[in-house]
Amino acid sequence: MSPVAEVPRSENPYRPSISREGLSPTHPVTATDEYGDRREVHIAGESPLTLYVDEREIVTLMTLGTHPEALALGYLRTQRFIESLDRIRSVVVDWKTESVKVTTWNGVDGWDEKLKKRIVTTGCGQGTVFSCTLDSIYESRLPEVTIRQSTVYGLLDSIRKHNEIYRRAGAVHGCGLCKDTAVQMFVEDVGRHNAADAIAGYMWLEHMTGADKIFYTTGRLTSEIVMKVAQMGIPILLSRSGVTNMGLELAGELGVTMIARAKGKHFLVYHGQMTFDAQPARLA
Amino acid sequence: MSPVAEVPRSENPYRPSISREGLSPTHPVTATDEYGDRREVHIAGESPLTLYVDEREIVTLMTLGTHPEALALGYLRTQRFIESLDRIRSVVVDWKTESVKVTTWNGVDGWDEKLKKRIVTTGCGQGTVFSCTLDSIYESRLPEVTIRQSTVYGLLDSIRKHNEIYRRAGAVHGCGLCKDTAVQMFVEDVGRHNAADAIAGYMWLEHMTGADKIFYTTGRLTSEIVMKVAQMGIPILLSRSGVTNMGLELAGELGVTMIARAKGKHFLVYHGQMTFDAQPARLA
Repeated sequence: MSPVAEVPRSENPYRPSISREGLSPTHPVTATDEYGDRREVHIAGESPLTLYVDEREIVTLMTLGTHPEALALGYLRTQRFIESLDRIRSVVVDWKTESVKVTTWNGVDGWDEKLKKRIVTTGCGQGTVFSCTLDSIYESRLPEVTIRQSTVYGLLDSIRKHNEIYRRAGAVHGCGLCKDTAVQMFVEDVGRHNAADAIAGYMWLEHMTGADKIFYTTGRLTSEIVMKVAQMGIPILLSRSGVTNMGLELAGELGVTMIARAKGKHFLVYHGQMTFDAQPARLA
Repeated sequence: MSPVAEVPRSENPYRPSISREGLSPTHPVTATDEYGDRREVHIAGESPLTLYVDEREIVTLMTLGTHPEALALGYLRTQRFIESLDRIRSVVVDWKTESVKVTTWNGVDGWDEKLKKRIVTTGCGQGTVFSCTLDSIYESRLPEVTIRQSTVYGLLDSIRKHNEIYRRAGAVHGCGLCKDTAVQMFVEDVGRHNAADAIAGYMWLEHMTGADKIFYTTGRLTSEIVMKVAQMGIPILLSRSGVTNMGLELAGELGVTMIARAKGKHFLVYHGQMTFDAQPARLA
């Protein structure tokens, strides 16, 4: 995955036709609080969305449903079912049948092999479908970068305005695609990896490079999320949560800068380079 | 899944032979904090564990690895690959090959059909393998229960002593099998549903009924966790996090009492009956 120049949407010759069927993310319900009082509160939506490619059923994703088209594209991208956006003719979501139908121009290469491989050699990691094409990820070349501490703090400030579903309803994880201290896209979803996949799909649609981006997530940095971020070509991963040893090992091998437990002024750099240009005052 | 009487381990004729290969959950690593200082911190382990049944590869789970045998059994139980523990002869974990080998006495009924069904009709919910046998869950009959508010508070107190891996390393979710205010088993894991599956496996091994239990989780109450808890025959679900609309709908249909956002003295009862015997003082 070599970095490509960013192309404005209108100049993009390969943009498939896509529906725009995002759902409203939260639902009002009545619950009883600790005083025995009935209260109207909001809960996160969760809908099954079955993905078909050229009328073949691939997978059912449980999703909040706000970005179903980008999610379907991102899933096909991060699972490496389809290698290039220009193979895709249309993406059509229909919530009545809880389906997203992806149509290609000329079919999918090695389709049977891909489906078989996915199932037989790796199956479902119960947390995500574990990519069967782990080898190919080592072909990704991420740029060497050094992040500034001031950028981390500026970005954490920007992020605070974005996790609105979590604040209203809980039960979601959020992921942000960021450039310097700006958040370019923020997606929340009930599915652990759906938010990341929706960003992967969005980047594909917009022909965006990952090389100058930072990927933020509220979730834990396991091996799977590190792989997805590396696949998107993004060299820096920032998380509010912790890391696992396999996530850290992969970050080292793939050259992903990994900053975790980032809250307020605190964070830990587990891998990568930082310029400490905004150190907080030490407590006496 | 009708409730069964609890049988002491020594009287259990169907206990398979199992290895005891739990891993140490955390690893020390060095990270750099916001002052630029190097610090030794702990991170959660994450290991692939490939499950074989009678030498057929089923799935690769990413796990913390503390309860691999119970995890394998619970996975086979909650996915309904194997309906009864007395069909299982042995469960042997070998971390050198990152495998757990389950051997049955007489094979598995409808094996090809089960594997095919799992893949074709439901696939992987990217967050868990979504049970293809949703119908059969409606056969479960959960007892009607009323939980006391004082039990919730007592249980939350007990839980506080148990989430040690989270406190040391983060990056894990915890689940507890509880009776009244006592925690009988507490499992933490990096895989979102592995902790629940390990408890399902443990209950199977110990011939425990779910009818008098409460299931606690730090995680969100999505449809999948509600299904697993109902499958275990447990009528009450308590969570520190929020709920999704599909989780709530399923809880209503299956008769699972659902209490969420439980922290300190706060909680919300989304479904089910409570006796308010310990109301906190109202703020003036």
